[in-house]
Amino acid sequence: MKTADLLLTHAHVLTMDDQLRQVIDGAVAVQGESILAVGPTAELAAEYSPLQVLDCSGKVLMPGLVNAHTHAPMTLLRGLADDLRLDVWLLGYMMPVEREFVSPDFVRLGTLIACAEMIRSGTTTFADMYYLEEDVAKATSEAGMRALCAQTVLKFPSPDAQSYEESLAMSRDFISRWKGHPLIIPSVAPHAPYTCTDEILRATAALAAEFDVPLHTHLAETSIEVENMRREQGMPVIPYVKKQSLFEAKVLAAHCVHIDEGEMRTLLHAGAGVAHNPSSNLKLASGVAPVSRMLSLGLNVGIGTDGPASNNDLDIFEEMRLAAFLAKSSTGDPTALPAQQAVLMGTRLGAQAMHIGHITGSLEAGKRADLILVDTSPLHNSPRFQRDVNSPYAQLVYAAKSTDVTDVMVNGRWLMRDRQLLTLNESALIENAREYARKIDIFLINREQSVLSKLIAIGGAAQEESFEIQAKVAIESLEPILAALQQEGIRIIRKRHYKEYDNYFFFDDPSQGILRYREDDFIDEKGEVTNVRSRLTLIGTHEHFPQVLLSRSRYYAPATHSLRFYREYFKPVREREFQKDRLRFLVSYKDTEFFINLDSMTSPDLGKFVEIKSRTWSRKDARHKADLANELIAFLGVNSDQAVSSDYIDMVESKNT
Amino acid sequence: MKTADLLLTHAHVLTMDDQLRQVIDGAVAVQGESILAVGPTAELAAEYSPLQVLDCSGKVLMPGLVNAHTHAPMTLLRGLADDLRLDVWLLGYMMPVEREFVSPDFVRLGTLIACAEMIRSGTTTFADMYYLEEDVAKATSEAGMRALCAQTVLKFPSPDAQSYEESLAMSRDFISRWKGHPLIIPSVAPHAPYTCTDEILRATAALAAEFDVPLHTHLAETSIEVENMRREQGMPVIPYVKKQSLFEAKVLAAHCVHIDEGEMRTLLHAGAGVAHNPSSNLKLASGVAPVSRMLSLGLNVGIGTDGPASNNDLDIFEEMRLAAFLAKSSTGDPTALPAQQAVLMGTRLGAQAMHIGHITGSLEAGKRADLILVDTSPLHNSPRFQRDVNSPYAQLVYAAKSTDVTDVMVNGRWLMRDRQLLTLNESALIENAREYARKIDIFLINREQSVLSKLIAIGGAAQEESFEIQAKVAIESLEPILAALQQEGIRIIRKRHYKEYDNYFFFDDPSQGILRYREDDFIDEKGEVTNVRSRLTLIGTHEHFPQVLLSRSRYYAPATHSLRFYREYFKPVREREFQKDRLRFLVSYKDTEFFINLDSMTSPDLGKFVEIKSRTWSRKDARHKADLANELIAFLGVNSDQAVSSDYIDMVESKNT
Repeated sequence: MKTADLLLTHAHVLTMDDQLRQVIDGAVAVQGESILAVGPTAELAAEYSPLQVLDCSGKVLMPGLVNAHTHAPMTLLRGLADDLRLDVWLLGYMMPVEREFVSPDFVRLGTLIACAEMIRSGTTTFADMYYLEEDVAKATSEAGMRALCAQTVLKFPSPDAQSYEESLAMSRDFISRWKGHPLIIPSVAPHAPYTCTDEILRATAALAAEFDVPLHTHLAETSIEVENMRREQGMPVIPYVKKQSLFEAKVLAAHCVHIDEGEMRTLLHAGAGVAHNPSSNLKLASGVAPVSRMLSLGLNVGIGTDGPASNNDLDIFEEMRLAAFLAKSSTGDPTALPAQQAVLMGTRLGAQAMHIGHITGSLEAGKRADLILVDTSPLHNSPRFQRDVNSPYAQLVYAAKSTDVTDVMVNGRWLMRDRQLLTLNESALIENAREYARKIDIFLINREQSVLSKLIAIGGAAQEESFEIQAKVAIESLEPILAALQQEGIRIIRKRHYKEYDNYFFFDDPSQGILRYREDDFIDEKGEVTNVRSRLTLIGTHEHFPQVLLSRSRYYAPATHSLRFYREYFKPVREREFQKDRLRFLVSYKDTEFFINLDSMTSPDLGKFVEIKSRTWSRKDARHKADLANELIAFLGVNSDQAVSSDYIDMVESKNT
Repeated sequence: MKTADLLLTHAHVLTMDDQLRQVIDGAVAVQGESILAVGPTAELAAEYSPLQVLDCSGKVLMPGLVNAHTHAPMTLLRGLADDLRLDVWLLGYMMPVEREFVSPDFVRLGTLIACAEMIRSGTTTFADMYYLEEDVAKATSEAGMRALCAQTVLKFPSPDAQSYEESLAMSRDFISRWKGHPLIIPSVAPHAPYTCTDEILRATAALAAEFDVPLHTHLAETSIEVENMRREQGMPVIPYVKKQSLFEAKVLAAHCVHIDEGEMRTLLHAGAGVAHNPSSNLKLASGVAPVSRMLSLGLNVGIGTDGPASNNDLDIFEEMRLAAFLAKSSTGDPTALPAQQAVLMGTRLGAQAMHIGHITGSLEAGKRADLILVDTSPLHNSPRFQRDVNSPYAQLVYAAKSTDVTDVMVNGRWLMRDRQLLTLNESALIENAREYARKIDIFLINREQSVLSKLIAIGGAAQEESFEIQAKVAIESLEPILAALQQEGIRIIRKRHYKEYDNYFFFDDPSQGILRYREDDFIDEKGEVTNVRSRLTLIGTHEHFPQVLLSRSRYYAPATHSLRFYREYFKPVREREFQKDRLRFLVSYKDTEFFINLDSMTSPDLGKFVEIKSRTWSRKDARHKADLANELIAFLGVNSDQAVSSDYIDMVESKNT
């Protein structure tokens, strides 16, 4: 008789090995960190004299589930902002909150909560990507889970580094110190091609290759990413990162939603693994990854939850079900991705995608003892049929719930027994999370009190205030003024021709001001658009001088996102659109610079106007310039009876009220 | 102070009423079957003097979930056959097993299991459609749940009726006796347009209208249904059923996956409700229903699980999440169908779709006390943010699990307290289900032991055996034989010209025989296909006479399903295709009828052959006909040195081995 630490007996064993061997009355022998043997209970009971025997009757015994892509600490941001577009969610909520809150304590707490939730739902191994990744690694090893921990590198400052060089140095330091750890595989994560430079892709690949550790990244998640890559680089995402030598490293590529057959072959040839994220791709409407095709080509495709703030849980049972559902739905073929294959993706293929298939992912002698027990007795798992070998898998994928997991072992150590966590204190974690939620709520509630603070939150440093005087007169035609501009006494410094498209956002509280999104299309002499520029202006209070308006813009900056982004982020109660054709002259009159705008309002059709404008910095200067502006109106031969001391927007708004 | 039976206090109340009112520290007062009041705890505590108070701190209190479409008794068939196409699943597995097993006991047990599972997962009301529906109603009322129970009517014999007239009579009887029941709304279910006749649609609508009860049906589930309807009736499904006066009744239409905007408006105008079934539609690859559009038009769209054999559970939490995910994914807009709307579909809209919105679906004074408590303390529901009114819904839809439901009340009666079922004995149900599973396993294992029994299972009565002698000789060209057929001594009774497409299925065990799927395309004198016919033949043993083959076909019948159906149902280990051009003569030679086939084998290119064939019924007759066949070969001037005493399939198979 051979010795063993533990013999698990009388389980329905799903090995998930190459032959997909099942043993109806099966057993697993464990010694130290590893699996000694897998086979029929009768056989192993005769062969081994274990220190301990655990009767697993009525349970499925299978490899621990593998979550091939997540951002574990984001448990702390779960449910903060949902049903939003990716950019609004990420740039409007996640990133501002991360800039404010990410710290070693935040990362540690978020990771421990994630580990507790993953253990409860039967996950033993995960692939992470976040900031301060060494704190993720520490917390994970403390919880006793196995993980690929990848330090994020970005081209712009991140919550844990001012520059990518700093992130790279952190990554090198982290990898060199943690390599060889029994649970943690340290790794580096160039975030994505569109958030990294070529240098970052090359440097991270070289670093991973140097230490022979995997590299974790996001590739081809959205169609916009691919469109931009094609426009800017003339090729789709996979060839581009190949050109940057990314595949010199062992790559774990999350998403791969928008890749073609050639790109799949490139990934296969490069030995890269893929992490499919069904919930996240659905929730963010990223598209459906061609998973059936990838699998049939032989790619190692695992399943990930993605971060719990875009899912919103860490439940691989749910993801296996969705992976099967989505493959059927997207191919129109209900026989696509059968349950057995979904379980394979959730176990061995996931480990292989993470490049640790030799360590975990199936129940085989020599692999680490990473295993779970699933209770088949709950009513929703009833009845159980024996006829079809696919049935036990179908039950796991289509009927079972993650809460059916009763016991979890990683590396030969129990992390959960009879639904009790052994390495983590859940109530303390929940209590600490509540405190973070309170602080984050306050931070966001404060920020969202004003349009200005919401602007600042997403705008970073690009902001300024400005005062402006403005005199405006309705005219019949532009020609007399164009002639008057040729007179002596005035000098044209610059002339521009635009088409302007303005969208005004109105808010419930008028003291918030009005937010204007303006697109200027520059028109050349042939009438063609040569350039497009967008700007955001938060229009504040107005004051009226005789025939002249003094207005204060509380914020003025280039608009780096789309009109749609701002609409969804600011949620205006009302909106109004304007279009005009503008001839804009910068002139010098009596040694003072003015802008003269000759505007033809095309939509709504308000007619033609001349506007005299000038920036100003004080009330006194404003009064002086207002006088000069009235003079200039006379100089241009315009009848000031038609003066309009209001913005275009006021003209329409007052008409309506 | 007013009296009340029960005051539920300190819950986070989601009323799901018209204003979607939430009360953070909320209370609900219950008296008898009904809700007396909903409001802040402080207010209701001051107003009511209840017999009992239940502190619901840390819980969400909300209306019970509504499962707007299921076939409850099919819990007993869950996991029996998965990852199959609809026709293989339904015609190959579900229907044969139902024909064998459906009985009052089966229906009662299946329903009780379904009720237990639905109560556990927070469902209080469901819409059912099955056979022996009165037994569903009895079991449901015994479990204490609310349900719309619809008796199925089909144009062909069903497990509970020999004819549709019988089903209609059962429906009338059932409805007249159960109408007015406090929990059960009796109803009739014309199964679907393609399984009913016009008369059935009209008669069921008239019956439902007569008793003023809802009518439950499946409409526009698959694109094939719509294509067939357009081809056969010249219009899509909704206008067709409208023409059959279906909307004289209050209709609950399950699926509506393939309907256009005009059809949505027809449904809206008709006051019909829709049951959206996300899991089922995905798992069977039926398509994605245009739910966002239906909702924006104002249709009452509820959520259903469909039967637990095509889902495979009865979990409305899962369906709410999928409804939100699918709407986002299919429209490409992650803001589509936000969490709040998903919860609305899972509660009030579902009740409205079932035409019982005045009774249940929201927490409002006067409605029945159908409510649930959801524990927010599990880790996966942590943290909780207050900033956004959508957050509590997002938590329910994207993070919470059905196992978080702790307490369930229907019609003022507790059905579950602290996760203990009060009206059902789960372990007895599971035990009884196990017994059915055992019997069904045996039934199917027996059936699947032979190809012949699988054929009989789906083929019904259309089967016969036949013996045939066959002599075959390779020839260079057809012309000499065509000339010989004009000689005296032979009479041509009939002549046909086909193109034949044969698919042979091979099985592991050769004694099973070889299954041939043959398509005959009839060619007219202009060379055009005038008719197509498909047949299935199970080819059994061969015997060799001199130059003549005696073969026995164990089964021979028209093929009513597609080649693809048979391929997926029989799962052959190997397949081979043949194409030939055949001139077929029925001749009389020496008062005996023979078929003479002049075959040009086009794929694989085996050359040209003449075949002499004749049916036979005894070995003696076979020997006689074999002699005559050899004579006939000589008569036709064919060189019998080129005789081939084998089928085409044997010629190719022997080449390969």
